[in-house]
Parts: sequence; C-alpha cells; structure tokens
Amino acid sequence: MTDTKPPIDFWFDFSSPYGYLMSEKIDALAAQYGRKVKWRPILLGIVFQATGSKPPADNVSSKGRYMFHDFHRSARHMGIPFTPPSRFPLPTQNAARAYYWLHGQDCALARAFAHATYRAFFVDDLDISSPDTVLDIAEKLGVDRPALAAALQSLEIKARLKDECEQALAAGVFGSPHVIIDGEAFFGADRLPQIEHWLKTGGF
Amino acid sequence: MTDTKPPIDFWFDFSSPYGYLMSEKIDALAAQYGRKVKWRPILLGIVFQATGSKPPADNVSSKGRYMFHDFHRSARHMGIPFTPPSRFPLPTQNAARAYYWLHGQDCALARAFAHATYRAFFVDDLDISSPDTVLDIAEKLGVDRPALAAALQSLEIKARLKDECEQALAAGVFGSPHVIIDGEAFFGADRLPQIEHWLKTGGF
Repeated sequence: MTDTKPPIDFWFDFSSPYGYLMSEKIDALAAQYGRKVKWRPILLGIVFQATGSKPPADNVSSKGRYMFHDFHRSARHMGIPFTPPSRFPLPTQNAARAYYWLHGQDCALARAFAHATYRAFFVDDLDISSPDTVLDIAEKLGVDRPALAAALQSLEIKARLKDECEQALAAGVFGSPHVIIDGEAFFGADRLPQIEHWLKTGGF
Repeated sequence: MTDTKPPIDFWFDFSSPYGYLMSEKIDALAAQYGRKVKWRPILLGIVFQATGSKPPADNVSSKGRYMFHDFHRSARHMGIPFTPPSRFPLPTQNAARAYYWLHGQDCALARAFAHATYRAFFVDDLDISSPDTVLDIAEKLGVDRPALAAALQSLEIKARLKDECEQALAAGVFGSPHVIIDGEAFFGADRLPQIEHWLKTGGF
C-alpha cells in the first residue's frame, strides 16, 4: 500500500444518479489498491453548455424513460439503496459550494457531507437544491449553520466552484461521473469493472 | 434447458462498435440460460432522426475522443479483437439488407454473415458500406453473389429493413446495441453483467 501516487479524480454533479452510484463504491475500490480519491463536484449545466451536449435523461423520450428505469435497476444490481427522485434533475450549486467550503476546513467532514447529500437526494428524495436542505444536512454533521449560510454566498466559494468546472472541462469531462486515474478517463458508473482492472494492472 | 421462452431481441447497427462487442458475447450468454437470440440489424440514422437523438461519438468533441478510446479499451477488457476503424461511422443499409435476405433462406448463414460483417469492419477495417465488400463477405460463405446483388436492390428487402427499423422504434430502441429480454430493455455492451443477472434470476 502506498500513497505516493497522485489521488484519483472523481468528478461528479450532486444531481447525477450514476454519480451517486459511483460515490458509494469508488473510495473502497481505490483503497484496495492503495489509492486515495479527490472528490470534485461540478455543475453539469456549465459542462453541457460548454460542450454543446445535453442531459442524457431528457433529450429523447424513449431514452429518458429507459434511463430512469436503468438508474434504479443499476442501483439494485450494485446493492445500493435508491429511491426514484420526484424532482429531477436539480440545480446543485448550493451543495457544491457547501462541499468546497467544508473541504477548506476538514476533508473528512466534506466527504461525509457529500455522502449525506447524495443519500438525501437519492434515498430520502429531499430537495437538495434548497439552501435550507443543504444547511440541514451540514448541521446534522456538526457544521456551524450561520457560517455555512454565509459561505454559500461568498464570492470566494462561487469562484472556487467556477474554477473547478473549468478544470473539469480542461480535463475532458463531458458528463457525470468521470473518474480519471493518472490521466486515464472512465465515464459512467458502469465503468467500475474497467476501473478495477486498471487499478489492478496499471493499464490494459 | 428450454426453448419455450421467446427469443431475446438483439437490435444493432452494423456500424456500432458496442453492437459488435455485444455480438461477440450475447449468443453464448443466452445459451447458458437456454435462450435463443433474434438478431435484428437496423439503421441508426433512421432511429436518430425519429428520436431526435445524435450519434454519441461525434456530438461533442471531448465525448467523441473519449468514446473512440473507450471502444478499444472496452474490447480489450472483454477479450475481443478490435482495430480502430479508419472510416466511422459507415452507412449500413447494404449489410442490413443482405442480412435479412439471407435470413429468409438460412438463419445460420445469416448469423455467420453478421459475424463476418462486424469482424470485417472492426477487425479488418474494411469498408462495409460498399456493396462489393458485402458481396465479397457473403460469397466467402458460399452465397450466390449475383442473387444477393439483385436482392440488395429489391423492394421487398428494402421494405423489410424499413419495417424492422419501425419495430425497433416501437420497442423503444434509441441506440445500438439494445437487448430486450421478455420486455426488459438493456442498452449498451456494458449492460452484459446486468443481462446475465437478469437471465439467471428472471428479474431483480
């Protein structure tokens, strides 16, 4: 086990069901191979606007219906709790800003917040676009609610999230989740078997 | 082992790399669970036009580059020979028409032709849009070349292919490959583990 290799980048949007599925697996998988993971929430709206792409779940009706079915079936197949969300997709700038502010103070706390936020959306069907919901989630983890409420409006945190989105685009990210290991990109929760093979063999 | 269940539908376009990967696996997998597979080539151009979708590999440049990389990596991961095609995508109406004409005479011959056509494209980098290439492939399998050449222009075969595309759309197909088992749709070669689980358990 070694930590000398750079962390794996895990790019995701808090509104991405496949990002949620990846979030429940990637840390443990990476740890098996002595690797750490850098979680990097972004806003898919900015990515889609920049790349000219469209949200996969609503650009074609037969495809959209299929994907909603596949979210749930994939979760069952991976043994991950999933409740079909009643509101989807949701804007996630508040959740992402909260993450980066928390990360500046305590990495482990930010990770716990990210898990709790994904589960709030995809298990408890909460509206994570709401600042109040984001603050509720953080408060339960012991976070200073007024300080976080102020941070959500800070120019510094807004700039940080914008910068992360630009870095994602520069890294070739076009959707969520993207896992990038030493320059090798894997798009989608369904690439977990390839990610495992790559970590095991160092390329194939 | 029983053949009483209806065949699994395997919808694909001969220009689809993930369709090729599925074609190398689906028959053996289905056979393990006593199921047969009905191969149904279609034209993705018609499907994309009807659904308002776009070819996944060229609507966004970062996505397009990723997908070309992923075709090859997925083939390696699945242990399937793959040569990145120098012409892509290709029109496949000649290959699909030949398939349906052959199928009307000899199912096993049509299956052998489909495998040979996919491998001609994705292993030998041949231009399978050309009628001559299609006729060459068929002739090597013992097919009467002039009869097939005439069939490629027959109104009956053109109508058959059009009808198959319409049936695909009616079944909710929006890309290639789609595997539909007793009404349950699986899109993409990366759904093979879920297909296997479904065949084993009858749903999950």
